[in-house]
Amino acid sequence: MTSSGTGTTVVKLGGSVVTDKDRDETLDADSLETAADAVATALGSGDVEDLVIVHGGGSFGHVHASEHGVSTTDGTHDVGAVHAIHGAMKTLDEFVLQRLLERDVPAVPVHPFSVASRDAEGRLDLPTAPVETMLAEGFVPVLHGDVVSHRGEGVTIVSGDELIVELATALEAERVGLCSTVPGVLDDTGDVIERIEDYADVEAVLGTSESTDVTGGMAAKVQALLALESRASIFGLESLPAFFRGEGAGTTIES
Amino acid sequence: MTSSGTGTTVVKLGGSVVTDKDRDETLDADSLETAADAVATALGSGDVEDLVIVHGGGSFGHVHASEHGVSTTDGTHDVGAVHAIHGAMKTLDEFVLQRLLERDVPAVPVHPFSVASRDAEGRLDLPTAPVETMLAEGFVPVLHGDVVSHRGEGVTIVSGDELIVELATALEAERVGLCSTVPGVLDDTGDVIERIEDYADVEAVLGTSESTDVTGGMAAKVQALLALESRASIFGLESLPAFFRGEGAGTTIES
Repeated sequence: MTSSGTGTTVVKLGGSVVTDKDRDETLDADSLETAADAVATALGSGDVEDLVIVHGGGSFGHVHASEHGVSTTDGTHDVGAVHAIHGAMKTLDEFVLQRLLERDVPAVPVHPFSVASRDAEGRLDLPTAPVETMLAEGFVPVLHGDVVSHRGEGVTIVSGDELIVELATALEAERVGLCSTVPGVLDDTGDVIERIEDYADVEAVLGTSESTDVTGGMAAKVQALLALESRASIFGLESLPAFFRGEGAGTTIES
Repeated sequence: MTSSGTGTTVVKLGGSVVTDKDRDETLDADSLETAADAVATALGSGDVEDLVIVHGGGSFGHVHASEHGVSTTDGTHDVGAVHAIHGAMKTLDEFVLQRLLERDVPAVPVHPFSVASRDAEGRLDLPTAPVETMLAEGFVPVLHGDVVSHRGEGVTIVSGDELIVELATALEAERVGLCSTVPGVLDDTGDVIERIEDYADVEAVLGTSESTDVTGGMAAKVQALLALESRASIFGLESLPAFFRGEGAGTTIES
């Protein structure tokens, strides 16, 4: 049941991959099916053994979060807002699980609101014993951007990017992938940068490291991934199969 | 936002209270509304400040669990069974949350499958930081009997009674209540035993302490509650308001 060969793989399917970001609570069904196919193939072939999936919120979570003015740092005590955001993310999660189960991927949900919390300084606590136990028993845990209880703030948002970083560290993941709608980190001519080993390599393109926020754009992702022990990649959906096969996909980030 | 006056109250609404145990996936709508009314009144009056609710599975969870041969000790690796049980419990939980929210109780879900796990010896690990943070921020966490990942067994069941005991201990609860369809622990003439301080008091009625199992009947409940630091009560739905007011309700169990 447990595995060791390839170590643990943690992959995030961006909100822009699994949903249509321009239409409220709408799936990008084609992209989601393509991603689910890649997951099923990777597990079936043995290229990946232990896999944790995280998906973003896209047009499900983000709309409600911004409607209620909730971010990773600004919270709400309005229980209606909490249910609007959490409920939308659970609905999206059901769709993702369904597509995986249809392909015999033994996917099971882990809702961050139930397991994670933030202290008064905003630090995220994410106990990973459930995820580790699920992996050891042959399941594929699926997490998602969500609300999270936060001391002094009520609830705030926990982003998929934050979850990826926490999981990669706690599980000592061998491979970490961020699958989005861009083919990688782009240089100023629009080409994919193959490898980033230091933030200084990309500061000219992505801006200085001081100007970024936690859930922000590419600069924040690159910084977070550079801080990991694991080898990380940022790539587009078309490269998800290559990522699972252990081949170069998009931009490799390894300090 | 935080409170101290009355300490934390942990109450379990038995599966037989909130569901019609004789009909598959059917609520006992009247009983659930009565319970939700009592909760809203208790919070509104200030009789209870910090409240955690746990509900059982009744005709939602139990049917699927026994259909798939899953118990607190016998597990499954069948992901279809996992989703059948977990999904039914989430559906029931939605109904419970809805009734509470309608009465302005700021109830939020905590799904045990996401946060709890068992080791190879079956010991339950239930991190309570999310529940504590929710309480501190003025929310009412609602947990429920559920599946739980279990080393070597796939998933097993975690019962509402187990959750109550874990929560009462971790939160140093001041009051613990088990609300069921019987008015308390009954003696051999059918009268409610007012107070139990030692298992020997009731061995003649409930049987010896060796013959009980974890999720079993009244004997197991009494033993688990005797082991707590908190004052506990077992009572019927009609006594839920009295329990919240801090009055004697059903059988008081305090060693």
